[in-house]
Amino acid sequence: MRCVRFEEQGRARIGFIDGDVIRAVYGSIDTYWRMTDEVFPLAGAKLLAPCVPKQIICVGFNYRDHAREFHVDVPKEPALFTKAAHTVIGNDGKIIYPRQSHEVVYEAELGVVIKKRMKDVAPEDVPDYILGYTCANDVTARDLQLSDVQWLRSKSFDTFCPLGPWLETDLDPTDLSIKLYLNGQLKQNGRTSDMVYNPYEILSYISQSMTLDAGDLILTGTPMGCGPMLPGDEVVVEIEGIGKLRNEVVKGY
Amino acid sequence: MRCVRFEEQGRARIGFIDGDVIRAVYGSIDTYWRMTDEVFPLAGAKLLAPCVPKQIICVGFNYRDHAREFHVDVPKEPALFTKAAHTVIGNDGKIIYPRQSHEVVYEAELGVVIKKRMKDVAPEDVPDYILGYTCANDVTARDLQLSDVQWLRSKSFDTFCPLGPWLETDLDPTDLSIKLYLNGQLKQNGRTSDMVYNPYEILSYISQSMTLDAGDLILTGTPMGCGPMLPGDEVVVEIEGIGKLRNEVVKGY
Repeated sequence: MRCVRFEEQGRARIGFIDGDVIRAVYGSIDTYWRMTDEVFPLAGAKLLAPCVPKQIICVGFNYRDHAREFHVDVPKEPALFTKAAHTVIGNDGKIIYPRQSHEVVYEAELGVVIKKRMKDVAPEDVPDYILGYTCANDVTARDLQLSDVQWLRSKSFDTFCPLGPWLETDLDPTDLSIKLYLNGQLKQNGRTSDMVYNPYEILSYISQSMTLDAGDLILTGTPMGCGPMLPGDEVVVEIEGIGKLRNEVVKGY
Repeated sequence: MRCVRFEEQGRARIGFIDGDVIRAVYGSIDTYWRMTDEVFPLAGAKLLAPCVPKQIICVGFNYRDHAREFHVDVPKEPALFTKAAHTVIGNDGKIIYPRQSHEVVYEAELGVVIKKRMKDVAPEDVPDYILGYTCANDVTARDLQLSDVQWLRSKSFDTFCPLGPWLETDLDPTDLSIKLYLNGQLKQNGRTSDMVYNPYEILSYISQSMTLDAGDLILTGTPMGCGPMLPGDEVVVEIEGIGKLRNEVVKGY
């Protein structure tokens, strides 16, 4: 199923996509919901980020081709870092280019949303804890990532985590095409089968040290080819079985 | 005022300390509250962590004496990193020593809790955005901090952020004594005046890139003298004008 969050009369609503319409539901996707008889056309709907994560935990250098292009050894364990909460925007949301950076880059990633509290979960049990998958862009101020002591700030400017257009709840994440287009030009073109640690291994690994909650978001790394964006650019992340996440970059100063 | 969160009949309540009692309030300290006529003895009350932060943002090498002992240059800008949400425990909560580490260390820190949403706030306006101050222990798996690519995991095992015993809302944070005792022995003995960036400068700096929300927690760095703890140890952080935060270390494996 494809689950969307959308704005209707100023309110955030949730629903499922059924052909060219959104069927609205009451409740919360991760706990309890029931259908309503409210139906909205998908075309023209203002989609919101499909989840509102409290925590965003990411994995660095998790595609073999990306580690190779950066001349970095594949990490011996998943290399974890975070993005701050206010980075999240939805499909068509604007990525704000901050005054502090001269090199803001795109990184197409598969996002995984947690369904229920998880701690110390074995990889084979992880599927029970996954609510769904979405397209993500781990926007990064590369110059600050290299000059700061830790990556947090360079990854955490407001609007630096576009997500969407929706959550796909039924998906095998282990061999999907993942692409990024900048102004219509193909810039990243990988497959999730090139991941060093697959999503089940990553979630299990994180849960060995940190408790994850419903709605938390895990970003699973980016394939080769990430590069700079400028104000005015359009960036699209496309993942097989999910869809296309589209955003524009605007000047923030 | 000293604001506490405490457990009463299985529920989390809030209140203010008045001599040797807690006067319970309804509502939320950062928005609206009103007094009740319910009074509980402070002695024997089960205190909870004084805030439930969505985000915890920390500053590394922020005391000159601590940077010197680690042979690190004082950072040119505040060195930001994060701890995960489930690290938070309260006074008397147990710090769980994880199986993955052989070197878990204490770091006494002044914690600052945000009062209302803040973005792009100048240092001189920051006091309006501070709800209060508390004692914190930035527990760290030092071996993993050195071997992992980023600090997140080593800082983010569940229970690695003891906070308490309460929030002090009226305090000048710029020249306070900050001490840590391990099994009664004084191990850290600094003053917040030795900070490279004071709390107002830190909060202003963070707000230049990330939006902070009510309840978010900022840890402002640790003075010289942090060192290892073992299961069975008692660790106490004492900050002038706030009080003493006490925790024990227990084996998690």
